[in-house]
Amino acid sequence: MADRKKLILDLDTGIDDTLAIAYALGSPDAELIGITGTYGNVTVERGVRNALAVTELFGHPDIPVYRGVDHPIAADEANGGDGTFTVSRGSAFIHGSNGIGEVDIPDPTREAETEPSVDFIIDAAETYGKDLWLVPTGAMTTIAAVLEREPRVGSMIGGIVMMGGALTVPGNVNAWTEANIAQDPEAADRIFRSGAHVTMIGLDVTMQTLLTKRETAVWRETGTPAGRFLADMTDYYIDAYAVSAPGMGGCGLHDPLAVAVALAPTLVTTLPINLKVDLDGPTRGRTIGDYDRLNTAEKTVDAAVGVDVARFLDAFTTRVGAVAAGER
Amino acid sequence: MADRKKLILDLDTGIDDTLAIAYALGSPDAELIGITGTYGNVTVERGVRNALAVTELFGHPDIPVYRGVDHPIAADEANGGDGTFTVSRGSAFIHGSNGIGEVDIPDPTREAETEPSVDFIIDAAETYGKDLWLVPTGAMTTIAAVLEREPRVGSMIGGIVMMGGALTVPGNVNAWTEANIAQDPEAADRIFRSGAHVTMIGLDVTMQTLLTKRETAVWRETGTPAGRFLADMTDYYIDAYAVSAPGMGGCGLHDPLAVAVALAPTLVTTLPINLKVDLDGPTRGRTIGDYDRLNTAEKTVDAAVGVDVARFLDAFTTRVGAVAAGER
Repeated sequence: MADRKKLILDLDTGIDDTLAIAYALGSPDAELIGITGTYGNVTVERGVRNALAVTELFGHPDIPVYRGVDHPIAADEANGGDGTFTVSRGSAFIHGSNGIGEVDIPDPTREAETEPSVDFIIDAAETYGKDLWLVPTGAMTTIAAVLEREPRVGSMIGGIVMMGGALTVPGNVNAWTEANIAQDPEAADRIFRSGAHVTMIGLDVTMQTLLTKRETAVWRETGTPAGRFLADMTDYYIDAYAVSAPGMGGCGLHDPLAVAVALAPTLVTTLPINLKVDLDGPTRGRTIGDYDRLNTAEKTVDAAVGVDVARFLDAFTTRVGAVAAGER
Repeated sequence: MADRKKLILDLDTGIDDTLAIAYALGSPDAELIGITGTYGNVTVERGVRNALAVTELFGHPDIPVYRGVDHPIAADEANGGDGTFTVSRGSAFIHGSNGIGEVDIPDPTREAETEPSVDFIIDAAETYGKDLWLVPTGAMTTIAAVLEREPRVGSMIGGIVMMGGALTVPGNVNAWTEANIAQDPEAADRIFRSGAHVTMIGLDVTMQTLLTKRETAVWRETGTPAGRFLADMTDYYIDAYAVSAPGMGGCGLHDPLAVAVALAPTLVTTLPINLKVDLDGPTRGRTIGDYDRLNTAEKTVDAAVGVDVARFLDAFTTRVGAVAAGER
């Protein structure tokens, strides 16, 4: 299919990252040309392992997986840091210590690619141009490095649809910071100031798209290894949400929604805005409008503020359901 | 004119509050039936004095002025407070110690009404119903008291259009709090949770509607006492903005924009949302979406996120210009 969108998912594979992979693989209108590994829910090494393992379990051992930058800009040795990243207690609680809800799946039979993520993404931008969509859903360090190395990437490709941030609702790390931004506020701020156009899929919309155990039970009933894995892993996530966000009635489908919007932008309504990330002061990590560019006509971010929940959930259950059933 | 909207402005009269009065008096489609005095930029006593004085200077000594609640809920003696309110150093810097840019105008020849603001507003709601629009632009304590005493007011009247808050941009008291909300976070939170429908005109839009000394010079050239006063007072405000918000290129027309939207709702584009005010923690005073009501279909707030700047500035200069010239 020549008109399928080429997708690169930049993931800290994690539970909802795994659901994002399943969504992409289950989408007839998408071709997942690669997964680049960032950190956040898990380390880069763990995330890369998980991405390799789940693509194999889903019957797609052909998807290449690349390693990305493995620590935030503020932790760079050049910035006086120790060059390392440690998974937070909160991330381990939500995603499990192995990142996929403590579910055991077979180790991958293949290795990650040797080309670094930054090079792979820039090469893909040159190869595919407007057919390429970049979907970062973890720490944004690799994407910031891509735009620093080759600023034209933003205008060369179809678009960047990021999961991260919280504009009109509180954060999920604290009252003002969303987890992906919190991992590397400097990286997200550089992206927002890079001139590249970005669609931001934040908690504003992802906390409206909730999944329950009714849907995961359907996957389990398929009886396939993929279906049982998806159901067990996602139930772990739903149980964590029952503790961290009691009363919501399900888990937020953060990363899959970003993939869905890359394929179907009309799933969300957006507010054009020039954003920054607070880097100093008590609200470090907050995504918020930038007064310095409030009155400039050009806006670089489309921040999602509304979502067609029913249409997305229908697409999600159909597409992930097809992967659970081994049909794609 | 039977089809003029009846307006009650709840003001801490202040410089942009005075511009809001001028906007209302200069609007052929409005009838200003009363001003209720709250605190914030100034004390209730000072604000009531200013409202009486400027309406007389503008040739409208017929506008009744009422006293409202004079201190925030948290400062109530019932809540362990001292029952008082003190003008902040920041407010005095922006509005001047007399609230109207240190410009001297004649003392009013009449007194404030003896009926309390809360009673006047409830009486007016019963009298005018859907023809009445309530425009609070200071501390929201009186409006919260109105809705507590008579919850039906919200649905009885045409609407409440408040100036206050900051949803997609930082605050002006600190990085997360807007001044009117900061004065009494509990009152604003009660309004947002009251069920009453509110249009929120926050810094998101009012920092887009800027006035410069080019416009105030036109008022001064009228040669009238009203025109000279409006020009001198507003220049004081513009000079304060050059310090507090350098690079913006003018002063924000906060309170007049709320009046304008009450008369012409299509001046702004809005985001339907259920809001709360952070009452605890480091971000006390922040206006933000309420997760507990994120997924309820009914939204009680229309938060303005876009504004037709040219159309508003045209209306503003025409209407306030007419008052400056003594034509209305």
